[in-house]
Amino acid sequence: MQYCTEKLIEIWFDKDQDGAKSLRNIPYAELVVMLDIADCHILHSRSNGCMDSYVLSESSMFVSNFRIILKTCGTTRLLHAVERILQLAKVYCNMDNVISVFYSRKNFMQPGQQPFPHSSFETEVDYLEKYFPGGSAYYIGPQRKDCWFLYTMVVPKAAFPFPEHTLEILMTELPEDVLSVFTTIVSKDGKDCRMKSAINTIIPLDTIVHEELFNPCGYSLNGLIPKSDQYITIHVTPEPNFSYVSFETNQNTLNLCEQMLEVVEIFRPKKFLLTIFSNELSNEGLKVQKSLSDLIFRGYHRNNFQFLQLPNETMVYAQFQLSKDFEQLSVNVNKKKFSANNENSGTKDFLSQ
Amino acid sequence: MQYCTEKLIEIWFDKDQDGAKSLRNIPYAELVVMLDIADCHILHSRSNGCMDSYVLSESSMFVSNFRIILKTCGTTRLLHAVERILQLAKVYCNMDNVISVFYSRKNFMQPGQQPFPHSSFETEVDYLEKYFPGGSAYYIGPQRKDCWFLYTMVVPKAAFPFPEHTLEILMTELPEDVLSVFTTIVSKDGKDCRMKSAINTIIPLDTIVHEELFNPCGYSLNGLIPKSDQYITIHVTPEPNFSYVSFETNQNTLNLCEQMLEVVEIFRPKKFLLTIFSNELSNEGLKVQKSLSDLIFRGYHRNNFQFLQLPNETMVYAQFQLSKDFEQLSVNVNKKKFSANNENSGTKDFLSQ
Repeated sequence: MQYCTEKLIEIWFDKDQDGAKSLRNIPYAELVVMLDIADCHILHSRSNGCMDSYVLSESSMFVSNFRIILKTCGTTRLLHAVERILQLAKVYCNMDNVISVFYSRKNFMQPGQQPFPHSSFETEVDYLEKYFPGGSAYYIGPQRKDCWFLYTMVVPKAAFPFPEHTLEILMTELPEDVLSVFTTIVSKDGKDCRMKSAINTIIPLDTIVHEELFNPCGYSLNGLIPKSDQYITIHVTPEPNFSYVSFETNQNTLNLCEQMLEVVEIFRPKKFLLTIFSNELSNEGLKVQKSLSDLIFRGYHRNNFQFLQLPNETMVYAQFQLSKDFEQLSVNVNKKKFSANNENSGTKDFLSQ
Repeated sequence: MQYCTEKLIEIWFDKDQDGAKSLRNIPYAELVVMLDIADCHILHSRSNGCMDSYVLSESSMFVSNFRIILKTCGTTRLLHAVERILQLAKVYCNMDNVISVFYSRKNFMQPGQQPFPHSSFETEVDYLEKYFPGGSAYYIGPQRKDCWFLYTMVVPKAAFPFPEHTLEILMTELPEDVLSVFTTIVSKDGKDCRMKSAINTIIPLDTIVHEELFNPCGYSLNGLIPKSDQYITIHVTPEPNFSYVSFETNQNTLNLCEQMLEVVEIFRPKKFLLTIFSNELSNEGLKVQKSLSDLIFRGYHRNNFQFLQLPNETMVYAQFQLSKDFEQLSVNVNKKKFSANNENSGTKDFLSQ
């Protein structure tokens, strides 16, 4: 069993380095080899002309001109791919100057099942410090409970002269009727998942989407906003015993605050944590960070809230839990919705496994 | 050598428990035995009728009616005293209901020199969880650098119907002219230290002070504001290779923000971190927390800022470092001041050791 095993790295290269070329010049075959080191492979890809999007066997990758985002789950060896990423950037793009890195993940429920160095944040930090020296390791939230880890390195005076924000929502313990949609029993393909789950309603209309419904269950979606560096990525692990959904975006098209509320309404997790990074130039990011301290997610109470100032940006972190009263209510609503949606009685058996 | 080895615990008992009596009923002899377990002893004590203050061989203790604060340094075994504190509260005060606990410390430079369980925050948390189950462990600030640990347990719905805030400033790498004052070479006793260092200017006039200048160096001050639960405590470790000063208060008499600025002006550390806890009823605490995000400590830049919401209060954490330009300036000022102050050439030799 794999509980919330997602790992996320975002690496920014210095676009002002002499002779620097876009990371999108790295040949496809080289990306395949790099991902093989991390223990995953490409299922399909799309591009909006600014950024290339890859849906992977285990999560997602986005390659922009000077930024690479790699998110993997399961027992993948994400950090093992770092050295190769740096080599590829040097060989194909003349860039060996990383100006900013963010590595983050939620606490693992079964860290012992993770390959080195992912079995502890300590060993991950050791590993990261070799490639990105001088970074800072943060433990956010109460340790030994639901919490979140961040390693970040920013080159002093690295300039980010454009608005930048990232919202991530990590959801656990989802209701069965929500989860059932992301199985081959209830849905016939990725698009079917998207429509039935109402995910389509929280994505800008013109988003370039590619997605995957895994067999027998599991769902990944990558979305690219046309002609921009903006993406949306959603991953669903629907096994009821270790259900997990992640939503991540840096989009600036829809109201971010409303989108955040809608994501939680769609997935109705028992628990979720969210992080919002924003630099000073992102009005939208700063607005959402600010609103979060008073924002009501109906039916949830907030049991943790932290604010962190980093060299080039600020980060807000919050944990929420479904209130006891609503938990009961939610169960009833789910049961009703579940029986209405469920055209195949096998689903219930599958989900109860 | 002992670098910043202070450990601090604050325990609140439930005053509404049937038959509860003040912790100040615990006999002196019992306190002596309890402190012996922690590896320290009482040098002298004072009382303001609401709270008893003890200057210890290693730091300080304050006993109020329903709260005990114990701060120890060196290789003391602070947490070993917890079991005895709980026993004493039960036997002498009919209280076995702890409603709130805060254990905190800065990272140790040489954790290997600390006795169990103080060699790591992990083992400290294991220990604390036995006595105060259900608490939360927070790692604040960037790990493996200057950072700060907090374990806190609050009984749900524990009522604190009075304003409460605590300011702590932990300072390291102090200039030699400041440090020299806290040696028997420059000062003849505690009072002499207080006057020469200008500490007297940052303490309310009517404070009940008792203090100690250690031989050959080191200084502790406890201050009680008359007829109140308010205290001030200052500890100075003046050895230049591992200089450290802590300032802690919950006072509400002087402007807390001004006091904070003055403390840093007096000690001029190269680095300091500060924490401000405040509950919702403390206007002064909330005001200082709020002001901190914009507050300028002249000559310093802030390299970390975090905000944390706890069940009954909020906590603000910030780290500051002397700016490079001011470092040079400070050295020059110090040299000048040092030679003016220094009537005994032996001081310089001592401080250069």
